[in-house]
Amino acid sequence: MEYGMYYLEPVTPYETISRKMTRVIAAGRTRFQDYFIFETAAFGKVLVLDKDTQSTEKDEYIYHETLVHPALLAHPEPKSVFIVGGGEGATLREVLRHPSVERAVMCDIDDELVQMAKRLLPEWHQGAFEDPRAAVITEDARTWLETHNDTYDAIILDLNDPVGEDNPARLLFTLEFYQLVKKRLKPGGIMCMQAGMILLTHHRVHPVVSRTVREAFKEVKSYRNYIPGFFLNFGFIVASDSPGALALAKEGLEARLRQRKLNLRHLNPAFITAMFALPTDLQEAIASEQMVSTDALPFYLTEQGEAKQAPYRQDV
Amino acid sequence: MEYGMYYLEPVTPYETISRKMTRVIAAGRTRFQDYFIFETAAFGKVLVLDKDTQSTEKDEYIYHETLVHPALLAHPEPKSVFIVGGGEGATLREVLRHPSVERAVMCDIDDELVQMAKRLLPEWHQGAFEDPRAAVITEDARTWLETHNDTYDAIILDLNDPVGEDNPARLLFTLEFYQLVKKRLKPGGIMCMQAGMILLTHHRVHPVVSRTVREAFKEVKSYRNYIPGFFLNFGFIVASDSPGALALAKEGLEARLRQRKLNLRHLNPAFITAMFALPTDLQEAIASEQMVSTDALPFYLTEQGEAKQAPYRQDV
Amino acid sequence: MEYGMYYLEPVTPYETISRKMTRVIAAGRTRFQDYFIFETAAFGKVLVLDKDTQSTEKDEYIYHETLVHPALLAHPEPKSVFIVGGGEGATLREVLRHPSVERAVMCDIDDELVQMAKRLLPEWHQGAFEDPRAAVITEDARTWLETHNDTYDAIILDLNDPVGEDNPARLLFTLEFYQLVKKRLKPGGIMCMQAGMILLTHHRVHPVVSRTVREAFKEVKSYRNYIPGFFLNFGFIVASDSPGALALAKEGLEARLRQRKLNLRHLNPAFITAMFALPTDLQEAIASEQMVSTDALPFYLTEQGEAKQAPYRQDV
Amino acid sequence: MEYGMYYLEPVTPYETISRKMTRVIAAGRTRFQDYFIFETAAFGKVLVLDKDTQSTEKDEYIYHETLVHPALLAHPEPKSVFIVGGGEGATLREVLRHPSVERAVMCDIDDELVQMAKRLLPEWHQGAFEDPRAAVITEDARTWLETHNDTYDAIILDLNDPVGEDNPARLLFTLEFYQLVKKRLKPGGIMCMQAGMILLTHHRVHPVVSRTVREAFKEVKSYRNYIPGFFLNFGFIVASDSPGALALAKEGLEARLRQRKLNLRHLNPAFITAMFALPTDLQEAIASEQMVSTDALPFYLTEQGEAKQAPYRQDV
Repeated sequence: MEYGMYYLEPVTPYETISRKMTRVIAAGRTRFQDYFIFETAAFGKVLVLDKDTQSTEKDEYIYHETLVHPALLAHPEPKSVFIVGGGEGATLREVLRHPSVERAVMCDIDDELVQMAKRLLPEWHQGAFEDPRAAVITEDARTWLETHNDTYDAIILDLNDPVGEDNPARLLFTLEFYQLVKKRLKPGGIMCMQAGMILLTHHRVHPVVSRTVREAFKEVKSYRNYIPGFFLNFGFIVASDSPGALALAKEGLEARLRQRKLNLRHLNPAFITAMFALPTDLQEAIASEQMVSTDALPFYLTEQGEAKQAPYRQDV
Repeated sequence: MEYGMYYLEPVTPYETISRKMTRVIAAGRTRFQDYFIFETAAFGKVLVLDKDTQSTEKDEYIYHETLVHPALLAHPEPKSVFIVGGGEGATLREVLRHPSVERAVMCDIDDELVQMAKRLLPEWHQGAFEDPRAAVITEDARTWLETHNDTYDAIILDLNDPVGEDNPARLLFTLEFYQLVKKRLKPGGIMCMQAGMILLTHHRVHPVVSRTVREAFKEVKSYRNYIPGFFLNFGFIVASDSPGALALAKEGLEARLRQRKLNLRHLNPAFITAMFALPTDLQEAIASEQMVSTDALPFYLTEQGEAKQAPYRQDV
Repeated sequence: MEYGMYYLEPVTPYETISRKMTRVIAAGRTRFQDYFIFETAAFGKVLVLDKDTQSTEKDEYIYHETLVHPALLAHPEPKSVFIVGGGEGATLREVLRHPSVERAVMCDIDDELVQMAKRLLPEWHQGAFEDPRAAVITEDARTWLETHNDTYDAIILDLNDPVGEDNPARLLFTLEFYQLVKKRLKPGGIMCMQAGMILLTHHRVHPVVSRTVREAFKEVKSYRNYIPGFFLNFGFIVASDSPGALALAKEGLEARLRQRKLNLRHLNPAFITAMFALPTDLQEAIASEQMVSTDALPFYLTEQGEAKQAPYRQDV
Repeated sequence: MEYGMYYLEPVTPYETISRKMTRVIAAGRTRFQDYFIFETAAFGKVLVLDKDTQSTEKDEYIYHETLVHPALLAHPEPKSVFIVGGGEGATLREVLRHPSVERAVMCDIDDELVQMAKRLLPEWHQGAFEDPRAAVITEDARTWLETHNDTYDAIILDLNDPVGEDNPARLLFTLEFYQLVKKRLKPGGIMCMQAGMILLTHHRVHPVVSRTVREAFKEVKSYRNYIPGFFLNFGFIVASDSPGALALAKEGLEARLRQRKLNLRHLNPAFITAMFALPTDLQEAIASEQMVSTDALPFYLTEQGEAKQAPYRQDV
């Protein structure tokens, strides 16, 4: 092994990615989470929160285009968008590229992280926080949505997987939370979300999330894309209660991309459509999943990657 | 770090995968290459040749279905198939599932590896070597194809990337070799191949192979799939000189799968079609590639993942 | 990091040694312990039992000379020697180099390990097992010593540290066991033993063993030596109830080495004497240690290196 | 493996120490070298210069007591001391504990490092830089000694091993440099130095240094001690041209320690004497060494730990 600084991140209980760091930029803990920002030769800056790589400078465009545009392109004219999480500002940036957007509200409980991102991660937000259409709310997103009746054309959940029994994010992955999100969508409104790694040996993360969302919404579609900086295939979900809201025909996508003047680096109409075609083994895993995550028994992932259900006690 | 045996495999010059081994099954060197077979908790047996993971017990079906079936399903009635490499027998196994196949010839220079696979990797070949339609030739595939005029409905290249300047496989990645393959295809015949990892920082492997194949064949298509055991997205290529030979419409695929009674675990018609839709950044990397690998200047990959051209001297 | 097989062994809870393996020779489990034998470029064959490196081909002479000769040289004419553990035969080998030795009894519970060592580790035993003066007993050493009244000039404890609460070796590190050993020593007889790593942050292993031995024997001396293959300084102990039995003056050592024709590779009279001089911080840690390991509360080491006392339940 | 930040440091070409970092304190490059300061759970702060661990907060006292006191205790009344290197101030601190010292000059080419140590490593210098008897010179030590005729009772070389052909420190490990040092010693003066790791497979570092020093000085003694934070046994050398200057009898040491009121944490008279007793294999390696490092052919260590001789070209 070569001398130097490495960041080790287990991707399964048995396989680990090590990244050679060329520079440590920041490391510490906000009130809510550990953060760690470093630089690597291949991927540029890397942002890690609570042990999980969030995104890297060189490929964050792949993750954020994949998260945001399938939903916003499916919508004929998204004016108001609510983002849960997404503290480093790149989801907000992609949302604001749609010219119809008049108001993009980002709700992240961790203001300290948002401030740090503004200062240290300009490659991510690219000034999005300064856009007059953008608003940042520092509060627990669930509390905010419960206490504010505003409705949105799209609500984007940009959250970490709920790893660990004491993870407060567990209450953002339950049936009741998805029902609350649904109540805050306008007619024709769409929810989209990051929905867990898709790996042979860990198929249940995405299936459990999918199964739970399907309890809340009439129309639900999974899609997936490879995120190079994670060395993993990731699952995403779009959901709506409005019939036909998720009909994403290739031709319509083309027209909307042209009309909205979106020059995407990774996505294109054929590829967006292709992301929704799932391999048979994954389809079967999704179809056969029985676990529904609820407020009474919210699911969580163990460090070993297993999906478990147990009551959540805030004081744990 | 936990005590124990680990296998470390760099996936880029800066990122490394470590796999915790539960058992070492075999390690050594044949006349042609290093081999190493071990067991992991998540992926079962893992086969490594000359430093590169070839496939794992639990996900080899994904790799081999992806390599074999798009080409064979595109062909209306594949009777004769020639496989270059593929010593562990799983490519042969998938070929023989097509009932029209009357003759499947596997040509692998490394008989010692084939014998070891027969004994130690039954999960891969599953008895394919015993099929009366199968023949195994122990010779350099290029020499064999040069000296035998038989033609085939499909020729499958199941080869490692040409890593290292002294890698003899470099001469199986040149324009002249693809032209030779073309001469050994019957009318309507199709070549397909493994064509390198697709990773943000290493896009050139696949583009160079694609660029070179396009010099030899009139119709060439790239596709890609995520191979969990590699933690990488891999590129594949189908090529033909017969107009329309690669037209793989979803409906036709469905009919052929039904008719050939192929119950695939991973592939399905929509997913096969989707694998051919490429993201824009990859399309651009393929389109702009200028390097053509030739016998005079065959390309190779450095340990750092760069694509270089230089004369190959057998005595290096 | 470089590709390849590595063996990782934590030396503290925070520091880990990784060894690049050039070959795996054997791996498995006897009825009593895991074993693992591999080869490295610098140290040759390496023997690991239950996670801990036991010794390496290239430096085992340092460990075994250090364990055996200070005690046997202190004795004017060792005729009978009893070895607890030491299954790979190198301790036996060093004992048999003393020409006065008429009978060397090695008692190792793990016959399977002894047989494997005979076959795979000839560099260690060098034929010692064939010596007519040697006898190997396959039994729990404590049971054997309890039920056999034979006495010895020297008893050598060549045991692993008692890591883990369920480690049966814990009962070979108690006051009662040392009292039993004392009963099996002839007048002038000496016990010697491997007595734990000596590392800044883990001083308590050696102090606890020393404190316990001091409860059983009138004269007790600690010494230490650096074992390159462990990258650690190791502690050893000699103990006797006979006044003056441990008086190891440099001149006497010289005479005995000459007289016994011992050509040692590592030890010499001045160095043997020097090994007994301890640094002040270690002296203080030994002097202030209060923990006495007893059958009622035998001590053990946690995986984090802490010394703890708790009842031992065989059925754990 | 566990997630987190690790520092990997090869200790041989095949064995590597990894340290889990709890915090990165500083990383960067001065005009002369890379520096890296981090924290670990077991050893506290760790200082790394140009890839090599220099010392750790919890055990630096072992290294610095071992480097400084054998020489200064051998001298009846050290008044003036010159330190080559030692930028972090702990060598200076130990020197100033001898009450006879009137002037301690530390010459380190890297002022940026010295300033950083003052700010970030107070546990090392403990205010030594503020002592009115201390002076810090920022210049190449060889140039300074060549151009200044002051003489000293002791000169201490606290330098990194000359790893790498382009390492300018190579010219501080030559016969000519040691001859220069000798000219700057007062009658009865003593040179002492850090003199390389002592490890089975890398014995030549210390032997080459010893062989070269023996060409320059009439009396030369090697000694060694285990440095826990390095996981290595390190060699040191004292040398003098004054007959009897290195006669370090235990009784004299005791008297001087008492008289100078030195309460050392690690060293004591018996242990100091013991450090000079070398094992036979090391004695033989030192005695048989033929390589003399000269200005014409200064030696260096390859990354693989081999000792080589070649001309040094400053512009490499």
